[in-house]
Amino acid sequence: MPDHQDYTPFSAESLPAYLAGVATVAGRLGGASDNWTVTEVGDGNLNLVFIVRGVDATVIVKQALPYVRLVGDSWPLPLYRAFFEHHALRRQAERDPGSVPELYHFDEGNALIAMEFIAPHVILRRKLINGEKVEGLAGFLGRFCARTAFRGSELSMASAAKKADVGLFSGNVEIPAITESLVFTDSYYDAERNHHTPELAPVVARLRSDVALKARAQRMLMKFASNTETMVHGDLHSGSIMSTGTESRVIDPEFVQYAPMGFDIGMLTANFLMAYFSQPGHRGEDLDDFQEWILSVICECFDAFEAEFIHLWRTERTGMLYPRALFEDQGQESEGACKALLADIWGDAMAICGIEMHRRILTLAHNADFEEIGDTAIRAPLEARNLMMGAELVLGAGDVADAFQLADMARSFNKRDFL
Amino acid sequence: MPDHQDYTPFSAESLPAYLAGVATVAGRLGGASDNWTVTEVGDGNLNLVFIVRGVDATVIVKQALPYVRLVGDSWPLPLYRAFFEHHALRRQAERDPGSVPELYHFDEGNALIAMEFIAPHVILRRKLINGEKVEGLAGFLGRFCARTAFRGSELSMASAAKKADVGLFSGNVEIPAITESLVFTDSYYDAERNHHTPELAPVVARLRSDVALKARAQRMLMKFASNTETMVHGDLHSGSIMSTGTESRVIDPEFVQYAPMGFDIGMLTANFLMAYFSQPGHRGEDLDDFQEWILSVICECFDAFEAEFIHLWRTERTGMLYPRALFEDQGQESEGACKALLADIWGDAMAICGIEMHRRILTLAHNADFEEIGDTAIRAPLEARNLMMGAELVLGAGDVADAFQLADMARSFNKRDFL
Repeated sequence: MPDHQDYTPFSAESLPAYLAGVATVAGRLGGASDNWTVTEVGDGNLNLVFIVRGVDATVIVKQALPYVRLVGDSWPLPLYRAFFEHHALRRQAERDPGSVPELYHFDEGNALIAMEFIAPHVILRRKLINGEKVEGLAGFLGRFCARTAFRGSELSMASAAKKADVGLFSGNVEIPAITESLVFTDSYYDAERNHHTPELAPVVARLRSDVALKARAQRMLMKFASNTETMVHGDLHSGSIMSTGTESRVIDPEFVQYAPMGFDIGMLTANFLMAYFSQPGHRGEDLDDFQEWILSVICECFDAFEAEFIHLWRTERTGMLYPRALFEDQGQESEGACKALLADIWGDAMAICGIEMHRRILTLAHNADFEEIGDTAIRAPLEARNLMMGAELVLGAGDVADAFQLADMARSFNKRDFL
Repeated sequence: MPDHQDYTPFSAESLPAYLAGVATVAGRLGGASDNWTVTEVGDGNLNLVFIVRGVDATVIVKQALPYVRLVGDSWPLPLYRAFFEHHALRRQAERDPGSVPELYHFDEGNALIAMEFIAPHVILRRKLINGEKVEGLAGFLGRFCARTAFRGSELSMASAAKKADVGLFSGNVEIPAITESLVFTDSYYDAERNHHTPELAPVVARLRSDVALKARAQRMLMKFASNTETMVHGDLHSGSIMSTGTESRVIDPEFVQYAPMGFDIGMLTANFLMAYFSQPGHRGEDLDDFQEWILSVICECFDAFEAEFIHLWRTERTGMLYPRALFEDQGQESEGACKALLADIWGDAMAICGIEMHRRILTLAHNADFEEIGDTAIRAPLEARNLMMGAELVLGAGDVADAFQLADMARSFNKRDFL
């Protein structure tokens, strides 16, 4: 585990002198460090983020803070998460080349990463709120989820390498603990840091009195916390994706951990559904068109996931799981086994999707999709639809046959009034 | 990980001088080391086992060998397994006091453990072959499985402690690899070290051509290899249990790893079922009575498992999973959640049971229960029943409602002829 004895948080003023001493970054920026301009733009909760504009290029520098910004130093957070984030970036770049920012420099002691400045991309969540479509988004995300899921598992990796990696990531305790608590548990009781739109009170009471719902959510927590199927991004929502009108990238894997294969695509789907349900608070006459576009992204994303997963199953199944010796080498096909596994991944994804739809309305960290709807009389009924569909997904995760049925379910909830 | 640079395999001649220098052992043995007698009794595959008889007491010394005895030095095996075995013994002693031999001394460099000499117990498998009943066996084993499963999980443990332990055990790669290959995969194709009774050929061909069966077995392998629900014994068969007529102990946890909660009780059940199906090769007129006794042990073992698990759920649920804050603190009961989890554990156990029933007939390490039936014309039909019931369990693991139904299924297969 990293040593942070000499950790110093940088400022826009102190950063250039440091970067001047880092050849891989200074060379890229070009010119002398007094010609570089630095702006701190971190609007997240956990980090300092600097845009460093040099003579020849621009670079992003991200430095972990030892506490949660939103809450202040009452919630300390380990600096070692930068260590895991850099490991995640390296593995994601290998497993889905071009999907994540290029890594230029990692300083373990300072919990600092210098990487590619992604431009002119903006955060996908902003585009979804603004009603801006992104070409190729679904295919990119479906393939990213499939490639990282498959190539990070023992379907593909040698067992010794995969188990060593599980050992490396097992040092990451406090960061998964945030997900364990904020995502899986806090929604379902009156946890200290929770807040929600007051008008939701009757729906919230209904969810929190549902013992079967809570049991299912906890069963998924157990699966999440005790499952090392693959290395997941861990926080793949629309705020962790940057897009232009035609190109997208995935950022911020500091919640990386080993987890079930369905985790990333489940959380991602929840964030598309939240974008969907919040649209009436943002759109006028283009509402139907944009909502349908969001549902088409969900459907195409799962299509791309499945197609890519099956492709990798056929071409890169080199790990100890489902060995060719048992199937193809015996003249037998294994596509049925692949489909059965995909069905399990889908079931996990649906349950995680429902849980994520709850926690973004009920616990500490809300989504701008809903939060930017200032009038709670408009916001609350939309949030209620989202909460109730979430509950149905958690309780009946196995019963939603496919993404088309999921989209139909969303259309149905989008017409209902729960308050 | 341990360093074995100074590893020296001991002999009956060289051991006393070494033990004389180990105060915790020498003091227990009593007298001078030239009054001690040492016998090497290792009949297993992987270790030297010495019985050291002193003046006041007798002690067992177990030393790992760097290869599989059965195969010779063509199959190297890491000495570090003694390190994990001693960690397992310590944790099992904490989680189910009195269930395992007391640990006196661990020498990491020599991969050597000195522990309690369990007497006058004999290996349970021998008693089952001989038709000797053991009082209290089912309750002891059911409670052992429940206590180690529950107390080693995040139902009970603090997450940081459990995750640190997962990290520690992630260094254990080659030993789980044996289970992954021998137990889950080799049965289902013509693996190099396999052997089976020749008359079984048609049944074996049938199993190996069943794609759905192989897919289910591989799905269970994936669960086994990617699941850290709890620390399991990892090799809990009737050769890892020592009993008198009224008292039992569990030994040899060198296949310890993190795995699904249903693993130990599933493997154990398989070994009782193999004892059951092999009985016609060993018994005369007491056949029915002894076979029924074995089935009663299976049923009572699951009863004890469930009762103990529910008891611990009520009294020791202190981990992050299913927190009381969500249930009891809200005036709601959580027994339904516990039952749902037990149903999942049962499903895993049944699938693992079926897989274990296959590998003990088809891969490298067979059971004396069948092997001691010298006449293959008698042995093969019994093994065939066992194989076919195993397949039904793997394929329909979710459909066997409880242990009583499992026992009925065994009675039905016990009457059938598959050759």
